[in-house]
Amino acid sequence: MTVSKYLILRLKEIGIDDLFSVPGDFNLVFLDRVQDSGLINLIGDCNELNASYAADGYARVKGVGAIITTFGVGELSAVNGIAGSYSEMVPVVKITGTPNTKSQASGALLHHTLGNGDFRAFQKMFSHITVTNTTLLPHNAAAEIDRVLTECVQKVRPVYISLPTDVVDAEITVDMKPLDLAPPANPEKTEAACVREIVNAVAKAKKPIIVADACAIRHHCEKELLELIEKTGLPYYTTPMGKAVIGEDHPQFRGIYVGSLSSPRVKEEVEGADLILSVGGLKSDFNTGSFSYRMDAEKTVEIHSDYTDVFYGTYKAVGMKYLLPKLAAAIPKREVQSINLSVELPKIDMKAMVPQAWFWNRMGKFFKPNDIVLAETGTSVFGCLNSHMPEGATFISQILWGSIGYTVGGCLGAAVAGQERRVILFVGDGSFQLTCQEVSVMIRLGLRPIIFLLNNNGYTIERLIHGVKRTYNDIDNWDFSKTLDYFGGAAGQDKIGFQGRANTAGEFEQVLKKVESHADKINFVEVMMDWLDAPENLVKQAEASAALNRS
Amino acid sequence: MTVSKYLILRLKEIGIDDLFSVPGDFNLVFLDRVQDSGLINLIGDCNELNASYAADGYARVKGVGAIITTFGVGELSAVNGIAGSYSEMVPVVKITGTPNTKSQASGALLHHTLGNGDFRAFQKMFSHITVTNTTLLPHNAAAEIDRVLTECVQKVRPVYISLPTDVVDAEITVDMKPLDLAPPANPEKTEAACVREIVNAVAKAKKPIIVADACAIRHHCEKELLELIEKTGLPYYTTPMGKAVIGEDHPQFRGIYVGSLSSPRVKEEVEGADLILSVGGLKSDFNTGSFSYRMDAEKTVEIHSDYTDVFYGTYKAVGMKYLLPKLAAAIPKREVQSINLSVELPKIDMKAMVPQAWFWNRMGKFFKPNDIVLAETGTSVFGCLNSHMPEGATFISQILWGSIGYTVGGCLGAAVAGQERRVILFVGDGSFQLTCQEVSVMIRLGLRPIIFLLNNNGYTIERLIHGVKRTYNDIDNWDFSKTLDYFGGAAGQDKIGFQGRANTAGEFEQVLKKVESHADKINFVEVMMDWLDAPENLVKQAEASAALNRS
Repeated sequence: MTVSKYLILRLKEIGIDDLFSVPGDFNLVFLDRVQDSGLINLIGDCNELNASYAADGYARVKGVGAIITTFGVGELSAVNGIAGSYSEMVPVVKITGTPNTKSQASGALLHHTLGNGDFRAFQKMFSHITVTNTTLLPHNAAAEIDRVLTECVQKVRPVYISLPTDVVDAEITVDMKPLDLAPPANPEKTEAACVREIVNAVAKAKKPIIVADACAIRHHCEKELLELIEKTGLPYYTTPMGKAVIGEDHPQFRGIYVGSLSSPRVKEEVEGADLILSVGGLKSDFNTGSFSYRMDAEKTVEIHSDYTDVFYGTYKAVGMKYLLPKLAAAIPKREVQSINLSVELPKIDMKAMVPQAWFWNRMGKFFKPNDIVLAETGTSVFGCLNSHMPEGATFISQILWGSIGYTVGGCLGAAVAGQERRVILFVGDGSFQLTCQEVSVMIRLGLRPIIFLLNNNGYTIERLIHGVKRTYNDIDNWDFSKTLDYFGGAAGQDKIGFQGRANTAGEFEQVLKKVESHADKINFVEVMMDWLDAPENLVKQAEASAALNRS
Repeated sequence: MTVSKYLILRLKEIGIDDLFSVPGDFNLVFLDRVQDSGLINLIGDCNELNASYAADGYARVKGVGAIITTFGVGELSAVNGIAGSYSEMVPVVKITGTPNTKSQASGALLHHTLGNGDFRAFQKMFSHITVTNTTLLPHNAAAEIDRVLTECVQKVRPVYISLPTDVVDAEITVDMKPLDLAPPANPEKTEAACVREIVNAVAKAKKPIIVADACAIRHHCEKELLELIEKTGLPYYTTPMGKAVIGEDHPQFRGIYVGSLSSPRVKEEVEGADLILSVGGLKSDFNTGSFSYRMDAEKTVEIHSDYTDVFYGTYKAVGMKYLLPKLAAAIPKREVQSINLSVELPKIDMKAMVPQAWFWNRMGKFFKPNDIVLAETGTSVFGCLNSHMPEGATFISQILWGSIGYTVGGCLGAAVAGQERRVILFVGDGSFQLTCQEVSVMIRLGLRPIIFLLNNNGYTIERLIHGVKRTYNDIDNWDFSKTLDYFGGAAGQDKIGFQGRANTAGEFEQVLKKVESHADKINFVEVMMDWLDAPENLVKQAEASAALNRS
């Protein structure tokens, strides 16, 4: 078997049905092998940053993603996207087609090099933002492919593979056993002791609750979490990064906890609990209201992917995947007390601009079960935290990494991964400008996302942090409502559904109907909003960030 | 004085009048200081990659460039551009606004971090693609700013500066002597011996020639080179990367030498010379016809920026800046033998598509003295090597790094740097899609480049290397001829000159007239070309690259 064939088979095995790519002369032969394999669909992106974002969005829907670029010029444009996958814990396989091994050994002065004979510099750069990396050579290729792909899936983080042009078709001998991708088992006695202590703690507690966070989603423990919630009857909350881990219709769901940025009821309930089962916690600034959370160790059980803290003690290597079902079986059920979380839409002037305070609740009513919703860093993600997410919905955002422009590429990837699902993107005018061109790939592929571009005339999140009227926060007003026409060109016309602008709330309601009647095509809606209108939680977060920068 | 004030003054001193930027919450306060200084003009880009390309293009016209981004998400998108500046030897100051020093010291889990408390990872990544880097702190800021800016200019390569939010306004004591940016002096006796040996060699030679290459341009030795050429009367050639170091009208200019890809006359003359004075040589694959140059050490004097090789011997630390004038003074003048290099345009069918073989000669006749011409990697750069460059023209391309999309950002930077000059960009449909959005910044700033988009329906350079009919080399056909309308929006309409498509050579001639009549505005011309039509030198280079990849 050839190295390329083996790599393709293993990629397919871990769940890669589509490979995001930009061609370059050091990867072209491998692209042929992918296309000719009939196993993996090759998707061409407009640039490598967007391709890396797409691979990330794909992985968030499908479990794992992959991207191939050329050496140097290609891979370095993907660095930000891969770093985002590392930071946010998304398993993405980054493959680079590199010059042939002879040129590398001799330090030849090839194009796409730094001109100093150093062919390892880029791989070293990637070592900071991947969990492992490798250069495939005929003698090690099979073992190395197995090793890095397994780490990618188990550690849910990106890995880097260098594939020299002359290794692509090298013949190797392989022993193709299925990869063992399951998380390692918990140590039996440690786990049993851990379960006993948690069960005792819950039994003693008067107001125990569950708080679900990012890693419950990243380590694919949604089902185990749901079982724990339903078998124990405990009320549960999520953080921003844990949003929609389970549909927010669930009768035990009580809201989103973001420290001091929480609603008063949620803050009182979470901080008044006498026992918190925290599942997959990730305590970053924007996930905790700038570290204003109150989850003291003396009343908190922290269940992570590879260890569990019960108050001040640590149970090493006891991870959530296998612990949650045991807790679900061992903790007696309490009576469920559900509360009505449904929100009435505020009365607004339908002839005026769409207000933020109305918009996000309105969108919550627009969402359907199993929708994939992407919210860009900035106004969109803070606003969308207030939107109700129905059963089966997937919420995608970068609350930790926060790279603006991510969601446009991410939307492409999510739409490829979830072709039977509806995909909805919220992106601001500022963020859209970073990665706009990927809309053309969505059109080419006949994908059907609904893109809401919130035009508030600049970087509103930054205006709120600093420089409210500074020109650097202004954004050029493109002819946004022609976006699909421009990027679709003549060939794209029959793939375009509704595109246009909503100047008022009344127009927006009309547009929503049009969008729903064009569900089989891509839709693009420019929503005009006041330049300083922002969700209340964003206003508070911006104040906290500004204070931290000054301190 | 504050750190920010000192940094702004020193940037201004080395030649930074404009700073390319994307705002982010860790750099906003410094952006205020820049705007309020009245010394440096702050230019907002659509994304960081484009900003880094712009800073590079600016530096190639003005001598030095600078870019500021935010931490992590911002700077990592600029990596490819900065690596290109490193590879191609362009001095760019990369400034990153970083979190405050307290957060960095405590490893706080902030947004825009990898989530692992490592605040140094990104600076380490940049250490591979910059000649030096620094983190500014109040106690070292003045000395470090002086050190890195001096290295940037002297080594003509990028440097990296980390500026924490809480250091921006820190007060420091400074002793503001002018920076010494001149290249270090040559060692006197070594230089004298070197001059003697070269003068003797020239005296003995029957057919001595000069070959000027990239580093003559990068180290700003155009005047010294011109003096050498004119005082010695020797015929001179350039390489692709040395193109237009002196206007190609010069009577001693004889053509471009690219090894086996040269014209038969140039190949014969260069390879038939018995002495070659090579000034600033850079022997990369695309600069030498895949290493097919014949400039044997036994007949070649290699004059570099910081050493000189005479045949097999090396004169350490003898650099071109001071050596060239001494050679010009010491080598007796020979009689100048100029030849007629003017090219007749081939007769073509004006009702058919524009052919490559005609187009580039036609453009040579379109160029005027002092034009800045940018040619994108691919068809454009290989074609443009055949275009005549008049006196004072600047030719910008990435023949070593070869990152597609570079020239769109580069064009913005060049246009800002050379506002009184005409700027002309040639870019393919494939490359344009990577960085298209920067056109909106050109419109906002009222810049007046002429953009020729060569639409040949895909990545033609790659089709020639590999996969001629593979779908991965196809490019979506956007509504390119509406580019200025889309990116300019309503506010940009009065800044738009001609935009449209030329389907035939006849239409193209009409369009050129329209473009010239709108010289005060931005112009955008989509030139339709056959999908496999390519300059002959590109066809040959592609064959050589394909062979090397296979070997």
